[in-house]
Amino acid sequence: MRNAAETRERIKQAAERVRQEHPLAPSITNAVTMEFVANAQLAIGGSAAMVYLADEGEAMAEAAGAMYLNMGTILPLYEASMPRTVRCLAGQHKSWVLDPVGIGVGGLREKLLRSFRQEKPGIIRGNASELIALARLWELDAGTAETAVCGVDTTQSVAEARQAAMSLARWTGGAVAVSGKEDLVTDGETVFLSAGGSPFMTKITGAGCSLGGVMAVYACCAEPFIAAAASVALYNLAGERAEKDAPGPGSFRQQFIDELYLATPEEIAGWPFKLDT
Amino acid sequence: MRNAAETRERIKQAAERVRQEHPLAPSITNAVTMEFVANAQLAIGGSAAMVYLADEGEAMAEAAGAMYLNMGTILPLYEASMPRTVRCLAGQHKSWVLDPVGIGVGGLREKLLRSFRQEKPGIIRGNASELIALARLWELDAGTAETAVCGVDTTQSVAEARQAAMSLARWTGGAVAVSGKEDLVTDGETVFLSAGGSPFMTKITGAGCSLGGVMAVYACCAEPFIAAAASVALYNLAGERAEKDAPGPGSFRQQFIDELYLATPEEIAGWPFKLDT
Amino acid sequence: MRNAAETRERIKQAAERVRQEHPLAPSITNAVTMEFVANAQLAIGGSAAMVYLADEGEAMAEAAGAMYLNMGTILPLYEASMPRTVRCLAGQHKSWVLDPVGIGVGGLREKLLRSFRQEKPGIIRGNASELIALARLWELDAGTAETAVCGVDTTQSVAEARQAAMSLARWTGGAVAVSGKEDLVTDGETVFLSAGGSPFMTKITGAGCSLGGVMAVYACCAEPFIAAAASVALYNLAGERAEKDAPGPGSFRQQFIDELYLATPEEIAGWPFKLDT
Repeated sequence: MRNAAETRERIKQAAERVRQEHPLAPSITNAVTMEFVANAQLAIGGSAAMVYLADEGEAMAEAAGAMYLNMGTILPLYEASMPRTVRCLAGQHKSWVLDPVGIGVGGLREKLLRSFRQEKPGIIRGNASELIALARLWELDAGTAETAVCGVDTTQSVAEARQAAMSLARWTGGAVAVSGKEDLVTDGETVFLSAGGSPFMTKITGAGCSLGGVMAVYACCAEPFIAAAASVALYNLAGERAEKDAPGPGSFRQQFIDELYLATPEEIAGWPFKLDT
Repeated sequence: MRNAAETRERIKQAAERVRQEHPLAPSITNAVTMEFVANAQLAIGGSAAMVYLADEGEAMAEAAGAMYLNMGTILPLYEASMPRTVRCLAGQHKSWVLDPVGIGVGGLREKLLRSFRQEKPGIIRGNASELIALARLWELDAGTAETAVCGVDTTQSVAEARQAAMSLARWTGGAVAVSGKEDLVTDGETVFLSAGGSPFMTKITGAGCSLGGVMAVYACCAEPFIAAAASVALYNLAGERAEKDAPGPGSFRQQFIDELYLATPEEIAGWPFKLDT
Repeated sequence: MRNAAETRERIKQAAERVRQEHPLAPSITNAVTMEFVANAQLAIGGSAAMVYLADEGEAMAEAAGAMYLNMGTILPLYEASMPRTVRCLAGQHKSWVLDPVGIGVGGLREKLLRSFRQEKPGIIRGNASELIALARLWELDAGTAETAVCGVDTTQSVAEARQAAMSLARWTGGAVAVSGKEDLVTDGETVFLSAGGSPFMTKITGAGCSLGGVMAVYACCAEPFIAAAASVALYNLAGERAEKDAPGPGSFRQQFIDELYLATPEEIAGWPFKLDT
């Protein structure tokens, strides 16, 4: 099991490196939240670039430190661009973040998500329902939780997705992050738990997507578990701060980006978490 | 003709149910304002999901309470995805909102809009020029107003579109909403008129689109006329409030989302309107 | 060489005309910043409309005063829609703004950018690296600067791109604008230099894209050099003002749109610049 002090130190180092190096974490991501993802990535010190075409995905994989692939609002051309991008990343031993938004809806999404069983992502991020559904799709042990994804919102708790997250992380050898009231990150062995954030995060679109994009930025400078944990800590911190003076989700959304920008590496690393197995 | 007190009561009930039930109103909608539509839908208590592909449109129609179809920035694949989605909604007796953005521009849009003459939407929402043009396209009585749609802005007044709106509502058996200085909603018999809002609503993109998305959320919990009227009242209220401390359209946009979130069912139902025939 | 007083007067006239006439400057533009482009265009008094399809691009070219074409997040259908739109604009002697975002990435982008060597844009806007790369692609004199575009951020200074900008402007007979710490606009003879703005403009996505969209609005009412210079002056003014009370890039983004809206023609024309050859 991992050590809390060392985890904290490595989170701090990841945040510092991102601010100094402005690493490029390109995305193939959904149209609804594309701009919010880019703004979150820029706010934390990273660089952003979004593409649709297969050869551009490959070019981005060459230039990237890591990438972000989000399955929302997919287009027919993703059938080529996602697998080719992912293979190119694998060939260069670069990490990528998979966000299985919309799992259970449509044939192309299922086909692509099945293919990622072999083309393993470094980080998988989603809500509880999505991760349970993905573990099932990959025929891994998802525990006893029933799955009922409907649209983009979860119907299950983070605790119910714990077994699915562990199984997915063991399968990929990377990290899995489950978003919810208390967020969970695991590498298949250690479980990182962190609370915070704001109820407003479910009242704006893109909180989850942009978290995935931020994980990809951190994954340019850290191993998957640390990248995911640092992002989760930052989101819990920024969400809690942004809520303070926000009368509604419109103000919250803007202040949240401000807080992503303002949080120091020390503050991110100092956000409460506990480690478990 | 409808009764004002009963209309008010039913508007309140619709707003309450949306807050309690968080109904899912997915969209096939334009890329410019997709995020704003989703944020408005979330702010009022609804759930949002956007798709492009035909089988995903069908899956959304299954999961949805009602849907929102906006004709802006259409792609070739809409030729299949919009009709298939609409047929699936019809098979389940679910309502949908048509926003004929860009009517008059391009062959595919015209083909799709023509097809919706038979595949009838529950609510049609647009500006005066768009609705006059749609009534003409469907060969309904559009009154004597000249039509000259140019881009996405209207060149005609709400009053000039009254006959077109009545004809469209009678044809569909649903409701039609005309956005303008004084907004009009009709079921083909009663005319609901409500003023308010803010000139800033024409200085941001997406005020109209998000209104359509909000109507789809309310249409999950109310009949078309009430869903459209409730949305219009809410937008007039939120626009007027949001303008107060907004030095410009950037601030207005964010505060408008806050006000959508903050408005209570009582306030929405209490917003001034008059009924007419 | 141009005269500073006359340049100033013509910038003022352009800004006044845009506010009075609300000219329509449609776009074929990237999905990440589409909404921000539209909001910036509306804030300064223009009208916006975004399209994907070829026949819609042609219809927009008919209705437009000028157009904005941005090469980010291109789709396969752009292979038809961009050239057909550009030819239609040429046939009507209307100007358009080219934003060569992502130059160097992917085959379709290169093919389209090559074709624009003959189908000449009235204004080319980009960062230093992009303009050096474009001058090289078009086999014009790009000076001695090395080019290394990586993602969407520049690796070179505005001064290094001066020769490339001059060559491009002489080739097209229009204007070229290089964004950076001190922005440069040239018609191939006179060089307009203006500083200001804010470091936050590199911490939000779309500052450059929306500047291109604003140039297209001004190009409806002014020749390319004046349209580009007016836009650069406005962005430097609005960026500097918006930064004042902005704790982070989220607040800055919203206040920046406010300042675009609030800036008067006199203030835009009064922003410091120098002319050089």
